[in-house]
Amino acid sequence: MSDTILDRRDLRFQLFDVLDTGALFDRERFREHSRETVEAALDTAEKLAREKFASHNSLADGDEPRFENGKVVMRPEVKEAYDAYIEAGFLSSMASFEEGGMQLPAIAAAACKGMFTAANCSSTSYPFLTAAAANVIRNFASETLREQFLPAMMAGRFTGTMALTEPHAGSNLADIRTRALPQEDGSYRLKGNKIFISGGDNELAENIVHLVLAKIPGGPDGVKGISLFVVPKYRLDGQGNPADRNDVILAGLIHKMGYRGTTSTALTFGDNDDCHGYLIGEPHQGLRYMFQMMNEARVGVGFGAAVLGYRGYRFALDYARDRLQGRPLGTTDFSTPQVPIIEHADVRRLLLTQKAYTEAAIAMCLYGYRLVDEKDTAEDQQARQDADLLLDLLTPVLKTWPSEYGVMANDLAIQVFGGAGYTREYPVEQYWRDNRLNPIHEGTTGIHGLDLLGRKVWLAGGRGLQLLAERISADIAATTDPRCQPFASALQAMLPKVQQATDVVGRQMQSEGPGRALSNAYAYLRLVGHVVAAWMWLRQANAALKLEAAEDADFAAGKLQAARYFFRWELSRVELDFERLCEGDDTFTQMEPRWF
Amino acid sequence: MSDTILDRRDLRFQLFDVLDTGALFDRERFREHSRETVEAALDTAEKLAREKFASHNSLADGDEPRFENGKVVMRPEVKEAYDAYIEAGFLSSMASFEEGGMQLPAIAAAACKGMFTAANCSSTSYPFLTAAAANVIRNFASETLREQFLPAMMAGRFTGTMALTEPHAGSNLADIRTRALPQEDGSYRLKGNKIFISGGDNELAENIVHLVLAKIPGGPDGVKGISLFVVPKYRLDGQGNPADRNDVILAGLIHKMGYRGTTSTALTFGDNDDCHGYLIGEPHQGLRYMFQMMNEARVGVGFGAAVLGYRGYRFALDYARDRLQGRPLGTTDFSTPQVPIIEHADVRRLLLTQKAYTEAAIAMCLYGYRLVDEKDTAEDQQARQDADLLLDLLTPVLKTWPSEYGVMANDLAIQVFGGAGYTREYPVEQYWRDNRLNPIHEGTTGIHGLDLLGRKVWLAGGRGLQLLAERISADIAATTDPRCQPFASALQAMLPKVQQATDVVGRQMQSEGPGRALSNAYAYLRLVGHVVAAWMWLRQANAALKLEAAEDADFAAGKLQAARYFFRWELSRVELDFERLCEGDDTFTQMEPRWF
Repeated sequence: MSDTILDRRDLRFQLFDVLDTGALFDRERFREHSRETVEAALDTAEKLAREKFASHNSLADGDEPRFENGKVVMRPEVKEAYDAYIEAGFLSSMASFEEGGMQLPAIAAAACKGMFTAANCSSTSYPFLTAAAANVIRNFASETLREQFLPAMMAGRFTGTMALTEPHAGSNLADIRTRALPQEDGSYRLKGNKIFISGGDNELAENIVHLVLAKIPGGPDGVKGISLFVVPKYRLDGQGNPADRNDVILAGLIHKMGYRGTTSTALTFGDNDDCHGYLIGEPHQGLRYMFQMMNEARVGVGFGAAVLGYRGYRFALDYARDRLQGRPLGTTDFSTPQVPIIEHADVRRLLLTQKAYTEAAIAMCLYGYRLVDEKDTAEDQQARQDADLLLDLLTPVLKTWPSEYGVMANDLAIQVFGGAGYTREYPVEQYWRDNRLNPIHEGTTGIHGLDLLGRKVWLAGGRGLQLLAERISADIAATTDPRCQPFASALQAMLPKVQQATDVVGRQMQSEGPGRALSNAYAYLRLVGHVVAAWMWLRQANAALKLEAAEDADFAAGKLQAARYFFRWELSRVELDFERLCEGDDTFTQMEPRWF
Repeated sequence: MSDTILDRRDLRFQLFDVLDTGALFDRERFREHSRETVEAALDTAEKLAREKFASHNSLADGDEPRFENGKVVMRPEVKEAYDAYIEAGFLSSMASFEEGGMQLPAIAAAACKGMFTAANCSSTSYPFLTAAAANVIRNFASETLREQFLPAMMAGRFTGTMALTEPHAGSNLADIRTRALPQEDGSYRLKGNKIFISGGDNELAENIVHLVLAKIPGGPDGVKGISLFVVPKYRLDGQGNPADRNDVILAGLIHKMGYRGTTSTALTFGDNDDCHGYLIGEPHQGLRYMFQMMNEARVGVGFGAAVLGYRGYRFALDYARDRLQGRPLGTTDFSTPQVPIIEHADVRRLLLTQKAYTEAAIAMCLYGYRLVDEKDTAEDQQARQDADLLLDLLTPVLKTWPSEYGVMANDLAIQVFGGAGYTREYPVEQYWRDNRLNPIHEGTTGIHGLDLLGRKVWLAGGRGLQLLAERISADIAATTDPRCQPFASALQAMLPKVQQATDVVGRQMQSEGPGRALSNAYAYLRLVGHVVAAWMWLRQANAALKLEAAEDADFAAGKLQAARYFFRWELSRVELDFERLCEGDDTFTQMEPRWF
C-alpha cells in the first residue's frame, strides 16, 4: 500500500490549473512567493505530516488521553508532532514576514494544513485551535492582551481553545449562563460550565488560553449580551510567564467515537470564585468576534472533512488495485488468476463516487480560501467586497457539503474493503469515525441550512446569490469543449431553479413567517450544495481539458469521467428538493410530536 | 429516557393489522397458537432482551473478547444471556412441539428475535449462529450426524458457526482452498484457513460445531466443487460428549469497529494434519446447502439492520422529547423557557426520516418472514410455490435495503443528539458502528445487486418480478381512502418503470453480454428497493386508516405522515436510476483503472 496523504498532482491541479493561484504572486503581499515556494512549503508539510502525524494516527486512536494524578496524559508522539509543527513555522503560515511568518496566500496555507489534517486530524487540532484563538486575540484584543498572549501562542508556548458550548444549551448560545463579573482592576471573575471544549486540557505546552463566551450582568438578552474573554489556565506573572493556577477545573474528559486523540473536555470556571478573565474588545460584542473566527473555522471544518474523505478514497483505491478477488463476469475457467477488485464495475462505482465527492469537496473549499485571498488582497475594492459577500454566502455550503459527502466517501471506502474495512487493522473505519464529527461541530448541518436560507441569501439584498449565479454563468459561458457541453447545459438548467426556489421561500417567509419556509432549509442547502459541487466539476473538467502534456492524459480523463459521474448520477437527485421547496412542502411542520 | 427496545404497539400493528398473522392460526401447524400466545412469547422475549441482553450491550462493546492462556475470555454476562436464551426456548421457537419447540410461525419467531437483536446484536449472534448451523444439519446431514450434533446444539451445549470465507478469496467462494481428504472410515481430514468466522471460538458451551466449506480433491472447478463439513472443536466420544481436541486452531481474534461482543476469528484447520470433518449430504453440494440457510440468514441480516436502526430512532425520539434547547424561530423574548428539540422542524425531519426508513425496513423483512410461512404452510401448492419464488426474488432487497437505510437511520440518530451523539456516553454511536457490518456480511450490497439483476429477476421466466407487480398492484387497487390515493398513484407510476428497466437490461445482456448491463446493478437494486419500501408505506398507511380505536388516532396519523414523507421526499430520487438504466449508462465500465 502506498501512503499517499494528499495527491500532489491533484493539489497542483486544483491550485494552479483550476484556481489560478499563480495570479496571486503579482500582488504586493505575495510578491516573494512563486509556484516553487508554494511547492516547497507543501514538500515540508507533506514530509512532516507523514513522519510526525500520520505515524501515530492509529496509535493515538487506540490509546486516547486519560486523566491521571491531576494531569491529562497522552501519547508522547502528540507533543512531538505539536513541537515539530511549531518549529517548522506552520502556525504562522499566513502571518507576515515581519512577524516571522511565511506570508503565504490563504489558499496555499490551507493546502499545507490539509496535508496535516489528512494525516492525523486529532493531533492537528491542537495547533489549529491555537492559531484560531491567536487570530481572535490579534484582531480584537487590546494591545496589552496581545502583548501578553500572542507571542507565547505563536511560539507554541501556550495552546488555545474556544469555549462556547454549555451543557444545558448546546447549539443555542443565546442561553449560555456563564457569568463575568467586572472587577475594580478592569479584569473579570468568570463562573460557569462549558462542555465539548476541544484541547480544553493538555500538557503540550506551558499554558492554555481559553477564549470564553460569557455574559456580563446587566447586558442585553440573548446573543446580543455575550462577551468574549481570555481565561488562561495559569495566570501570568509580571514577565508574562505562567504563574498561579487560575480557577479553571477539568470536570471531565469526554469519550468520543472518533477524533480520539483530541481531548474533549468539560470545564468548570470559577468554582472557587477565583477565575480571572480579561475582556476582549468591547462588552457584548463577543459573538461577533467569535464568528469572524468561526467563519474561517467552518471552511476549515469542511476542508478537513474533504481531505479525510479523500485520504480514505486513496486508501481504498490502492487496496482495490492490489487486492485480487474474483474474475470478470461470465468467466467459467477458474484456472485463470483472480483479478484486482478494481476490475469489477461495482468497485469502480464505489471509487468513482468517492472521487467525485471528495475532489469536488476539496475544490469548493479551496475556492473558498481563494476568496479569502481575494477579499484580503484584491487590488480592486469592489472585488474585495464581492469576495467577502460570496464567501459569506458560501460558508454554510463549504462547511456542510464536504462534511456530509466526505463522511459518505469514507463509508464507501469501508465498502471497498469489505470485511477488512470493518476491522481496525485498516484505517478506513477510523477515518469514518473521525470524520463523523464534522457534520456536528461548528454548527450542525441543520443549523447551517437555517443560516443559509434564513439569513445568508437575504444579506445585501441577495447580492451573494447573484454573485454566485454570475460566477457560475461565466464558467458555463467559458465552456468550449464539446465533451463538457452536457455538463454546462445541465448546470445552466439548475440556475433558474435555485433562484425560483429562493423567491418562493422568500415570499412564503414574508406572507406567513419563517415556520414552514425554513422547515425545508435542509433541502435548500442540499440543492445549493449539489449545484456548487456540479459547478466545481465543470470547472475541473474545463481545466483538465486544457492540460496538454502527454503524461496528463490519464489524469484528465479521470477528471472528465468523475465530472460525468456527478452530472449523470448525482446532480438531478436534487430536482426533488427544488420541487418540494417550490410547493412549500409542509411535511415536517405538519408532523405533530405526539404522532411519532 | 425510556428503554423501548422495539415498540410493541408498532409490532402488533405490523404483525396483525398489516400482515394478517392472525390468518396463520387457522392452519394445522399453528392451530395451538393465537394472538395471545404470540404476545406472550413477545412478552418473554422483551423481558429477557431487556434484562439479560440490553443490560450489557454497552459494557461488552467497551470490553471486547480477548485471547488469554489459550482461551477466549469475554464478559460473563454474555454467557448468562446465552444460557437464558436457551433456557427460555427461543433457539427452538420454530421447531415443532414434539421436538420441544414453540412451533411459532416464522413471522412471530422473527419478531421475538428482533427484540434480542435490537437489545444486543453481538451477544445475540451466538445463539442465532447456533440455530442456523443446526438448521443446516437438520435439513441436510445424515441421521448419524443429526443424532450426534443436533440435540446438543438445540440444548445449547454446542454452539455453531459458518466457516465460509478465506483470506485470499473474500466474497469469491469459487477460489476457496480448504481441502478435505476422504479417509477410509468415511470421515475427512480438512486443511485450510478461514477468516471472519463469527463465534469461531468462545467458552459459552462445551463444544463448537463449525460448518466448513471445503473442496474434495478431484471435484469440479469453482463453486460446483464445494462440499460442506461438520468440524467440531472437540471430537465426540462414544456417548456423544466432547473428548479429544480436534485440529482447529484459533489463529487470531479480529478487532472490529463494531459488533465487538461477537468474536470474529481467523481459524486454521488441519495445521497438524489431524482435523477431522464429516461430510454433510452429498459431495460438491455444499454451496446449495449453505445457501438455503444463507437465504434465511440474509433476511435475518436485513431485519437485524432494521431493528438496530429502529432502536436508534427510538432513542433519538426520546432524547428529542426530553432535551430542551432553543426556541421557536423568530422568538425574541429570551425569558421564555427553552423548548424540547422535537419542536424544531429540522429535528422532526431527522426523526421522520428515521421512522420512514426503519418502519419500512421492518415491514419488508416481516413481509419476507410472512412469505416463509406461506411457502411452508399455505394450503395451496401454488401459493407455496409463489411465496417461495417471491421470497427468492426479494431476498437481495430485504437484505440490502434495511442494511443501507438502517445504517443511515443510525447516522441521523447521532445527528439528533448532536455532540452528545458523538460521545460514547450515549448508545447511538454504537448502534451505528454495530449496524455498519450489515451492508457487508452475508454478501455485500454490490454483490446482492448482481444477484438480483444478474440472476434473480430471470428465474422461472421472470415470474418473481411478475408476482411482485401483482402483489403491489393488488394493494394499489385496494387503496380506497383519498388520503392514500397520491401514494397509490405514485407507486403505480413506478411499476412499468421497473419492468422497462428490467427489459432494457435483459436485451442489453443478450446483445452484448453482462458487462455494461450489470455495471448498473446497484442502481437497479436501489430502484427496486425504493419501490418495495414505498409499497410497504402504502400498505402501512392503508392499514393505519382502518384502525378505529380513538387511542390509535395519533399512531395512525404518524404512519400516514411517514408514508407522506416517503412518497414526497424519497421515492422519486430513484427516477434517475431508472433513466440511467434505460440508457444503458456506461460511466462505470468506461472508467479505466489507470484514470483514477
